[in-house]
Amino acid sequence: MAGREFDLIYRHLGLFGAGSQVRLGVGDDGAVLALPPNSELVVSSDSLVEGTHFPELTLPEYVATRAIAAAASDLAAMAADPLAMTLALTLPDSDELWLHSFSQGLERCVQALALPLVGGDLTRGPLSVTVTVMGSVPTGRALRRSDAEPGDRLCVTHTLGDAAAGLALIMGQLPSELEIALEDEEFLESRFYQPTARLEWVPWLREHARSVIDISDGLLVDTEHMADASGCACSIDSAALPLSSALSGFDQTLKLDWALAGGDDYELAVAVPPGVPLPSGLVQVGEFHEGSGVQCDYRPIARKGFDHFGV
Amino acid sequence: MAGREFDLIYRHLGLFGAGSQVRLGVGDDGAVLALPPNSELVVSSDSLVEGTHFPELTLPEYVATRAIAAAASDLAAMAADPLAMTLALTLPDSDELWLHSFSQGLERCVQALALPLVGGDLTRGPLSVTVTVMGSVPTGRALRRSDAEPGDRLCVTHTLGDAAAGLALIMGQLPSELEIALEDEEFLESRFYQPTARLEWVPWLREHARSVIDISDGLLVDTEHMADASGCACSIDSAALPLSSALSGFDQTLKLDWALAGGDDYELAVAVPPGVPLPSGLVQVGEFHEGSGVQCDYRPIARKGFDHFGV
Repeated sequence: MAGREFDLIYRHLGLFGAGSQVRLGVGDDGAVLALPPNSELVVSSDSLVEGTHFPELTLPEYVATRAIAAAASDLAAMAADPLAMTLALTLPDSDELWLHSFSQGLERCVQALALPLVGGDLTRGPLSVTVTVMGSVPTGRALRRSDAEPGDRLCVTHTLGDAAAGLALIMGQLPSELEIALEDEEFLESRFYQPTARLEWVPWLREHARSVIDISDGLLVDTEHMADASGCACSIDSAALPLSSALSGFDQTLKLDWALAGGDDYELAVAVPPGVPLPSGLVQVGEFHEGSGVQCDYRPIARKGFDHFGV
Repeated sequence: MAGREFDLIYRHLGLFGAGSQVRLGVGDDGAVLALPPNSELVVSSDSLVEGTHFPELTLPEYVATRAIAAAASDLAAMAADPLAMTLALTLPDSDELWLHSFSQGLERCVQALALPLVGGDLTRGPLSVTVTVMGSVPTGRALRRSDAEPGDRLCVTHTLGDAAAGLALIMGQLPSELEIALEDEEFLESRFYQPTARLEWVPWLREHARSVIDISDGLLVDTEHMADASGCACSIDSAALPLSSALSGFDQTLKLDWALAGGDDYELAVAVPPGVPLPSGLVQVGEFHEGSGVQCDYRPIARKGFDHFGV
């Protein structure tokens, strides 16, 4: 990288690299990070592409918040503490206003998630963002998706389906006669544009959970991943799904579809062993048992969810 | 990620995740890696976009080798040992043949660089690749670009300008009357398509070098970055530039321009303190001294090199 490109990166993205774990931030060939003693590194990369993961003309601030939350959600799902992130941004042109708005979203995430930005790459091309998040876990304590056991409860961290409803609103896909309060519309759209990586659950999960996955593709699909990887079955009770009050005005079928198959909430699905009291905010929606596959309301489900290369 | 997309990733990209440092590879929300004791993490992300960093219709194998070498080169420049990488691939469609060729390049890099692939994201969109490399250095021993001192020699690890010549050949930008031996053409093009990350230099650099940068934007530009960051000046002697025999048939001006400003070789520029004997393969091309800026053959140079958002 050179010249003006350097300046752009430093001006907009290079300001967010502080933190005691950051020994060397943006500006050299690589960043240098210190992990806590007796810990392992957790790493995950996620790409968001305009038109595939977010609508065209999405406010740049929201491109940042959505991309970073999606990646940071993987840290929560591994029960890892945030360490730092790198961000590779491809932009069609060098648009100062775009970058300014993007960095506002970025700055909010850096602060809220304690994820300093330690590396950046800015290239010219069709709009996309790749975020790589790094975290740390005490050695041997990362939570996998493959450790659920028969008898465990399937729980989720927050209301489901909001982001899918928000996306439907953003895309104008809902019947025009549908009346939604402005504050509900804002809430649902913000659940799509600014999802919350559930890092606040990491201490509880590390102490009590058996297995975790983040719900990026929809509850049914991600529960199936968890059940398959764990070699057991799971049954979900749709009546138990936590739904926000903002969804109350919507048709029941639509709501359930969003909550079961909407993949944009970035909540966590957690296998909690029997006997562990459920804290406030963690809602049981099903149970793991012997066998294979996922049932919802006693009916087997067909695999469903977002598949970029599916048919 | 779900369904067929999962299958594609596992079939093509999920096979390269072994290594004693890999506690958990591709397939969960995140990978888990163990660093050596008393070491720090080095991380760097690089994106390559079709049409910007490599010509359209580049063999997928070479998209992989070039993207990974470019990223791994940053580890060498920090004197870090390779640990692992993640790869975010954006593809216009789910092309099995494309992925097959891509994974051949990927596999070669994983083996040659000892960089297991521990995370993948495959999304639909215009072709681009973002590679994030992670490495480890003994605590406090990462080599920065900002530590060159007056009196240090500026050295490079291999011949310069080959990749720029290779790209000119690939793009058909050379006079048609120019006669080049087929083996020279192949050599030059392979220097563009399959650059070598100079990780074999890491042990020597850690022991003897003062400061390192990888030459991704051209010797002049990257030396200027090094001199600026170090608060000193540097003079380069063009007659000392190591040129490959494959370049011998080219015009002198062209050769020098490629060697000084061609940014695709991914060799290392190294500041070596006085008194340290230069090992075979490391060639002195200049010297750092008091002052600021970079001179070549006693003439100050204007900043030059590849700038994605430059004018």
